[in-house]
Amino acid sequence: MKVGETYYRSIWEDTNAPVRQRGVHIIDQQQLPHRFATATLATLADAADAIASMRVRGAPLIGITAAYGMAFAACVDSSDTALSHAAQVLMATRPTAVNLAWAVQQVSRHLATLPPAFRGEAAWTYAARLADDDVAQNSAIGEHGLPLIAGRDRVVNILTHCNAGWLAAVDWGTALAPIYRAHDAGCRVHVWVDETRPRNQGLLTSWELAQHGVPHTVIVDNAGGQLMRDGHVDLCIVGADRVAANGDVANKIGTYLKALAAKDNGIPFFVAVPDGTFDAAMPDGRAIHIEERHGDEIRKMRGLTATGEVAEIDVLPADRAVANPAFDITPARLVTGFITPRGVVAPGAA
Amino acid sequence: MKVGETYYRSIWEDTNAPVRQRGVHIIDQQQLPHRFATATLATLADAADAIASMRVRGAPLIGITAAYGMAFAACVDSSDTALSHAAQVLMATRPTAVNLAWAVQQVSRHLATLPPAFRGEAAWTYAARLADDDVAQNSAIGEHGLPLIAGRDRVVNILTHCNAGWLAAVDWGTALAPIYRAHDAGCRVHVWVDETRPRNQGLLTSWELAQHGVPHTVIVDNAGGQLMRDGHVDLCIVGADRVAANGDVANKIGTYLKALAAKDNGIPFFVAVPDGTFDAAMPDGRAIHIEERHGDEIRKMRGLTATGEVAEIDVLPADRAVANPAFDITPARLVTGFITPRGVVAPGAA
Repeated sequence: MKVGETYYRSIWEDTNAPVRQRGVHIIDQQQLPHRFATATLATLADAADAIASMRVRGAPLIGITAAYGMAFAACVDSSDTALSHAAQVLMATRPTAVNLAWAVQQVSRHLATLPPAFRGEAAWTYAARLADDDVAQNSAIGEHGLPLIAGRDRVVNILTHCNAGWLAAVDWGTALAPIYRAHDAGCRVHVWVDETRPRNQGLLTSWELAQHGVPHTVIVDNAGGQLMRDGHVDLCIVGADRVAANGDVANKIGTYLKALAAKDNGIPFFVAVPDGTFDAAMPDGRAIHIEERHGDEIRKMRGLTATGEVAEIDVLPADRAVANPAFDITPARLVTGFITPRGVVAPGAA
Repeated sequence: MKVGETYYRSIWEDTNAPVRQRGVHIIDQQQLPHRFATATLATLADAADAIASMRVRGAPLIGITAAYGMAFAACVDSSDTALSHAAQVLMATRPTAVNLAWAVQQVSRHLATLPPAFRGEAAWTYAARLADDDVAQNSAIGEHGLPLIAGRDRVVNILTHCNAGWLAAVDWGTALAPIYRAHDAGCRVHVWVDETRPRNQGLLTSWELAQHGVPHTVIVDNAGGQLMRDGHVDLCIVGADRVAANGDVANKIGTYLKALAAKDNGIPFFVAVPDGTFDAAMPDGRAIHIEERHGDEIRKMRGLTATGEVAEIDVLPADRAVANPAFDITPARLVTGFITPRGVVAPGAA
């Protein structure tokens, strides 16, 4: 999608260098929405750190970043031992999104079939293929989601939680793909953007939508229920970090509360996901490991000072106990349908 | 309750001055939790401004502050016209909490029965009586709520939203009164404190509880649902700004979402309220006017800088659209019971 007038993906190769010496560029999402900055990753440690520190975030994007992390590793040491170590390092960065483990396993399995001498270059090719495939899948999600929005002769109000836009994927995004499609097709859409504490990924969603010219309004996470009661929400679309075999959804903390409100008000609640997010090995949501992140995400807040500098302030004393689960489980019974690259499917049928 | 070793109410008269020239002291809640500061109100404009700017907040406390505002006005000009004007000024400050209108009407009706010459002093006496009555009512709420918590041979986990503690009343608080009682009675309580965006009143609750030594953990507003799913919440207690005749509850935005999650997980959801919060004239929640507050409450965040100064940062660009409804309606069907000064009663029976 575009930033200003320039087309960007959220991750792209530095094609000025030969493949085995390449880095990948990312948009540093810790700086957004306050500052647009790119950064370069060139080593396994770079990739792991970018994922753990959330300079890249979003289930699809951390999968792709991990795939490139495997490529960095394979160009340094392509032995089975080294690649197995690299896979472990990457998979330890964040536990909840299945895409990460999925991408690492895809690369690992592919490389295992090749002699070590070919693995470095092959890993690059494979990572690039996963990135392109992510774009294609999300584009297809956009197409399949479009009919859920189109065809109404008025503004369609869509609520979304967290950021499941192109910043969270490689392009298009998952939850936002149908919204971009609808907007581009001339539908009048308006998006309610949940702030998404504690990391305020809603501000990334607002930034994305503003760059693309999609009308939207930022609200605190507390507000969506009342907006639904008041008839101001036509449908909800969110992304997911992992979908269990029975249709239970792990997604950003707070998703469950919005799904409850949607159900209580008869509003359709859709989850947009690429293939890699479905985890057939996980029978239901109870088995999904929910990441507990550092309490400073709640205690501190980042923003711009009056003089335009990015600064962090303490909103809560350091000695105060906090709990910070990063995801919650939305039971399948609250999900109207999954918007997938293969079409819209009911929970349990995906 | 205590701040350090000193007993405070949230509002108290300056007894060093003769009644008609008195001010009232308040705890400046805009400075909390970062700084404990008191301020003095001495005029109708002072009182109205303190309410509108939320230097005093919480349904019971804004009622008492408004009563003192009437006393300030009555000491300057005790004519019917002047008092009617004062009542209008005060009632225009914040629309949702019924306690404000209730307190202003109580004072107005009382003064109307007296000759103008007696009204100034009578208004002071009446405001003081309302303040003492609030303390007595909240103390009784604590007593009646205690059995809901006591008698379990383990830690009892209670989730609360916003601040309905002593800072929101004159003393004890509404939702926190049973918790303070239980803690003082030796029950092992632990409180999940919702951050309560956008104004972060949960940080006031955390500050209160820390002063009194009550174990608690601050969470973002998004987290409560998952905590309930995981069995970490035994009951919820919140306050209210207005309760309609059918039991529908207007309270801080986000309350409805927690009530839905409590219902979905079979967790009791109690609303603690003094008499003045029941509005028999309001048939149901649909008729309650929900205050829309300034968008800068979402766009800006206040906290401490690295050098210990209170500062405000921009978390969202000023040009971004925001919506900021301050309250929501929790339908009576989601309320287990009301904890009142007269006992615990079912919705609709209050």
